[in-house]
Amino acid sequence: MFLFDRDTTPVQGQARPSGLSLGDAWNIGDKPNGGYIMAAVARTMCGHTNALGSPHLDPVTVTTHYLRPGQPGPADIRTELLRTGRTFSTATGGHHQGDPATLRTQTMATFGTLGAPEPAQYLTLAPPDIPPPDDCIVRDNPNLFVNMSSINDSTEMRLHPDTGWMKGQHSGIATSVGWIRLRDGRDPDPWALLFFADALPPTVFEILPDRAWVPTIEMTVHVRAKPAPGWILARMTSRHVAGGKFEEDGELWDSTGRLVAQSRQLAMILQP
Amino acid sequence: MFLFDRDTTPVQGQARPSGLSLGDAWNIGDKPNGGYIMAAVARTMCGHTNALGSPHLDPVTVTTHYLRPGQPGPADIRTELLRTGRTFSTATGGHHQGDPATLRTQTMATFGTLGAPEPAQYLTLAPPDIPPPDDCIVRDNPNLFVNMSSINDSTEMRLHPDTGWMKGQHSGIATSVGWIRLRDGRDPDPWALLFFADALPPTVFEILPDRAWVPTIEMTVHVRAKPAPGWILARMTSRHVAGGKFEEDGELWDSTGRLVAQSRQLAMILQP
Repeated sequence: MFLFDRDTTPVQGQARPSGLSLGDAWNIGDKPNGGYIMAAVARTMCGHTNALGSPHLDPVTVTTHYLRPGQPGPADIRTELLRTGRTFSTATGGHHQGDPATLRTQTMATFGTLGAPEPAQYLTLAPPDIPPPDDCIVRDNPNLFVNMSSINDSTEMRLHPDTGWMKGQHSGIATSVGWIRLRDGRDPDPWALLFFADALPPTVFEILPDRAWVPTIEMTVHVRAKPAPGWILARMTSRHVAGGKFEEDGELWDSTGRLVAQSRQLAMILQP
Repeated sequence: MFLFDRDTTPVQGQARPSGLSLGDAWNIGDKPNGGYIMAAVARTMCGHTNALGSPHLDPVTVTTHYLRPGQPGPADIRTELLRTGRTFSTATGGHHQGDPATLRTQTMATFGTLGAPEPAQYLTLAPPDIPPPDDCIVRDNPNLFVNMSSINDSTEMRLHPDTGWMKGQHSGIATSVGWIRLRDGRDPDPWALLFFADALPPTVFEILPDRAWVPTIEMTVHVRAKPAPGWILARMTSRHVAGGKFEEDGELWDSTGRLVAQSRQLAMILQP
């Protein structure tokens, strides 16, 4: 069983209410990455709605509000199925952890049936130019904060050679571009895209004078199609960094160059 | 009392559970506009959270999933306050209408305290070039579907002179730019921005061969600052129209040219 599947699906027959246990190979610092939490919670919610009769197996649009940090370990996901229709099923889910159990994140998701990417019919968003993964930057500098995080145990990233902050040069352009895949060879699927939408280093590393802590308030991911096997190419862009907040827009393409997901999050800038 | 306030705030002392009644001057066709529903529901939810002790009066990030069409008339908003913290309060709210009461939309919102727009600190999204409102297009062609909709009774829009579909010429560029304000002189506030984020004609009118019906699946609005009085300038853009769905990204600037909100919705393309 691949790590991502073990850490995003409930274990059958567990005594704890939902059976989900957040893994410890998805952390930034000592907290699980927000996209990983979204993926694990939404996948568990989808299973709950399927048990209640929903035939929809794929996440179409998922929004998570991050109220308190999550933690590795058992998590109770309390799902409420709001509607099952012909095309979509919609549910809300609260993610509780700790003793006493405390709400960490709240998710609202609409599930449906996704297909492979279709040929462009009207308009299509093309991927950016980037060298192949082997010619991109491996984040191997052990002094980088992110390289002390366990997310690197599960996830492989290759950043665009122009990524300025990796070389100590802030480019002033709040964009991150890079390749991403799961380290154990598990191919991407819609659940993994929810994680990948939040996995690249923050865009604002290119513009902030100091390394900042940028907790996510809210993230929404639209999965537009099922990805082909292989690397996912991700581009994250911020256009308005003001008033202590910024948005981060994500675009994910599969290995055939087809857009498979779009994301947006609102985050706070907390100076270290 | 201005129309927008009457139609987005509960009437005190009403027998119906939440006291909110959706107005009839916000329709596209015979259904209330999705942004108007978001504004009325989120504002009602905020009032409920304030009654429960939340000190936060402004919408910071609001997501609505549209499960069934709403309708003008009494609406029951069932709010659950998830957390009140120092900076934010988060709640979910179901919007029920009809007999028997049926869930129409579900909203998740984080409320906080917004300020006036700040001078650009790091990065700012500048408004597009557009002639002043008096040199833009008034949608006065009575044959246009949207001009048979009651939204024009409450809301004034002036579209960019380059708007191709208004002249029967599809530009092929899925962008809508225009000025918007409430017709009775009520100035914009964060609640009105939730409505404005969905009020311009769909971007896809510039690319679809036939007039399409484009119901919203999900919409998220980030309110970034309190707007100054006067017109709001809105730009809506779609970049990926495929597989029967498209995203519509909205950017709203106030009369001083400062960005005050960003939005994204996922919608379906249903051919007429």
